[in-house]
Amino acid sequence: MIDFKALAQTYGTPLYVYDFDKMKTQFESLKEAFRGRKSILAYAVKANSNLSVVKHFAQLGSGADCVSIGEVRRALMAGVPKYRIIFSGVGKRDDEIREAIESDILYINVESEAELGRVEMIARELGAKARISIRVNPNIDPKTHPYISTGLHDNKFGVEIVAAKRMYIQAKNSDHLDPVGIHFHIGSQLTELEPIYEAAVIVADLLRSLQAIDIELKFFDIGGGLGVRYDNETTIEPYDYAQAILSALKGIDVTIICEPGRFLTANAGYFLTKVLYEKNNGAKRFVMVDGAMNDLIRPSLYKAYHRIEALDKSGEESIADVVGPVCESGDFLAKNYPLPPMEHNDLLVIHSAGAYGFGMGSNYNTRGRSAEIAVEGANVRLIRRRENFEDVIALEREYL
Amino acid sequence: MIDFKALAQTYGTPLYVYDFDKMKTQFESLKEAFRGRKSILAYAVKANSNLSVVKHFAQLGSGADCVSIGEVRRALMAGVPKYRIIFSGVGKRDDEIREAIESDILYINVESEAELGRVEMIARELGAKARISIRVNPNIDPKTHPYISTGLHDNKFGVEIVAAKRMYIQAKNSDHLDPVGIHFHIGSQLTELEPIYEAAVIVADLLRSLQAIDIELKFFDIGGGLGVRYDNETTIEPYDYAQAILSALKGIDVTIICEPGRFLTANAGYFLTKVLYEKNNGAKRFVMVDGAMNDLIRPSLYKAYHRIEALDKSGEESIADVVGPVCESGDFLAKNYPLPPMEHNDLLVIHSAGAYGFGMGSNYNTRGRSAEIAVEGANVRLIRRRENFEDVIALEREYL
Ligand SMILES: Cc1ncc(COP(=O)(O)O)c(C=O)c1O
Ligand SMILES: Cc1ncc(COP(=O)(O)O)c(C=O)c1O
Repeated sequence: MIDFKALAQTYGTPLYVYDFDKMKTQFESLKEAFRGRKSILAYAVKANSNLSVVKHFAQLGSGADCVSIGEVRRALMAGVPKYRIIFSGVGKRDDEIREAIESDILYINVESEAELGRVEMIARELGAKARISIRVNPNIDPKTHPYISTGLHDNKFGVEIVAAKRMYIQAKNSDHLDPVGIHFHIGSQLTELEPIYEAAVIVADLLRSLQAIDIELKFFDIGGGLGVRYDNETTIEPYDYAQAILSALKGIDVTIICEPGRFLTANAGYFLTKVLYEKNNGAKRFVMVDGAMNDLIRPSLYKAYHRIEALDKSGEESIADVVGPVCESGDFLAKNYPLPPMEHNDLLVIHSAGAYGFGMGSNYNTRGRSAEIAVEGANVRLIRRRENFEDVIALEREYL
Repeated sequence: MIDFKALAQTYGTPLYVYDFDKMKTQFESLKEAFRGRKSILAYAVKANSNLSVVKHFAQLGSGADCVSIGEVRRALMAGVPKYRIIFSGVGKRDDEIREAIESDILYINVESEAELGRVEMIARELGAKARISIRVNPNIDPKTHPYISTGLHDNKFGVEIVAAKRMYIQAKNSDHLDPVGIHFHIGSQLTELEPIYEAAVIVADLLRSLQAIDIELKFFDIGGGLGVRYDNETTIEPYDYAQAILSALKGIDVTIICEPGRFLTANAGYFLTKVLYEKNNGAKRFVMVDGAMNDLIRPSLYKAYHRIEALDKSGEESIADVVGPVCESGDFLAKNYPLPPMEHNDLLVIHSAGAYGFGMGSNYNTRGRSAEIAVEGANVRLIRRRENFEDVIALEREYL
């Protein structure tokens, strides 16, 4: 049990706390599910990009799925071997493509024909042969929030099957492209297995039809997306997930790459915030806290639900909005949440805040971003220090 | 005319560009509307908190409306005199209240009974008398986006009339509180005058009833909220706005304080982004650009519309989504926007990006935040340098 009170005392609030042991358990459960198959788990750095978090997964043998050259640099710095780093992302700048090729990472996930052309051109300039994979859009409805659904035709991700085939042929015939993988990712927070299986079948078919024309790919990259329990969702068991993928592949000999983000970190993260005071407006009850949408934007942006624990409090619960100090009605951490009566300095623990939490944080309202803490066994350590006012204005001050 | 091409060349993209002359024009038009009346325009720093922007308004005689102690420090640093600084905000921490009292600013806008108690307690500890104003919630529907509507009972802002009256009496009787103002703010991006007028009438009535019991307030703070034209909205004329307020006040002798944010900066700001490439998925056209939701989150968060100009481009327009490189379907700058055919390195100018733009920016996907540029007459200067990778990881690296 993490002693949140002590942490809040020592490090102040608002505060992000990560349970490194839980991250490890999650990683190992997924690794175990693919046991006996060649597989790489490539942690999706965007979910929680703190260098110490990435290093933690690197030490467990994880690769890294990166969506910007900044994330590639993080992965390298954290000790992920270059041969387990993938550069995905729908919009790569030329300088990013160049650096990715020069860094000799595993491969670049290409998201469009135009991008394939640029990768080829840059590889030619460098006198290199760029390893690539192509992100296929299997046109499957993943049944998740529209903002995190990515596998339907009318979104920006990947290319259609026919285009993909054309691109593989182009790559195969190029002196500067080396097609090594195939990739799909249909969305995030997936809680149903069926769409994943269907997508895998479609992409495995493409893989076979490429084999038939002598394009042999080594990596079958199934993306991330495994959902987690925020509330009472039924989630997908790692074993069933792996079995579904394997049955779609029916014995094709490839290395499976999986890019979990949320699954590895979401439920290992806690956001601690202190109560400033309670307030009633009309019939409505508000619990004002020192954490806000600049710290955790998921409730505002996705109407996301996070379980909230009122530490060491009891008393009759009533419905309240948990809101932060930012001057927007959209600044809330929860709406209509049952909570006991709260007082100044009481502590709320916002659960499942380990993925897409800190990383989406801003300095809106000139609020410094929270500190981040890692808990591992009995060991507690700071992994990012709290931003102070000087940090926030540093890049402006010299121009004043 | 601003030479966006030259700016993009010199400073790179994505880039925020602010027209300081336009900010000045906006400021002066509003100042002019209240001419002949005691009034203070207190720029709402949250709208665009760059120190040079705040300084620009300070030099025009502006005060500052601040919602965190960080914003108060910005205002002081930028040269806003302390007697024109207001500290608003729904959730103030004790240390913020303390520093605000010690800084001897004009007043603290109190948002709840519990907060009044804390301000009093802290003022007592300091042996000080804290100047305060109370934010009244007049329960008026401002007819704007729910996330930026703030004057209805079921939101977190301000206190109801009866509670306000009780609080003024408590303040009047306290040795450590000095009630000097009354405040309301019903929402942002207001385009209808009627709700503002109605709110002003309600709050002016309260002011009169306080006068009747010998509570004399000096400041009538009407908040911000004046809307601007993003698309083809009809907006409120400063003159009509001032007249509505004056008629609600009907000759009560107070200093009017107005806290415009968006009105002063929105249309003076441009977000420049370069085209990476075009892409079609099924029937859908995408223009991928190097700017993203981490730079400008308004389209994702509020479904906000921004006019987009394709610089020096012609050709037949067709509908496209303008999307960034961030790995979310929610990462878009525009949906279904008519644009001519675009090529690699073409420049898009996203208009009306001067308010709630850069300030809500994050480092999501390990993207450094853009540079910010001020244009004033023929003079162009950097006012915030672009974040590089080292900046982004600085507070984590030492703990790796
Ligand atoms: C290509 C790709 N891989 C992996 C992920 C990680 O997704 P999740 O955190 O849901 O596992 C994403 C998320 O958007 C993605 O776009
Ligand atoms: C109290 C207060 N004053 C002023 C403003 C500035 O609003 P605007 O930018 O719409 O003028 C806000 C914005 O939310 C506010 O809450």
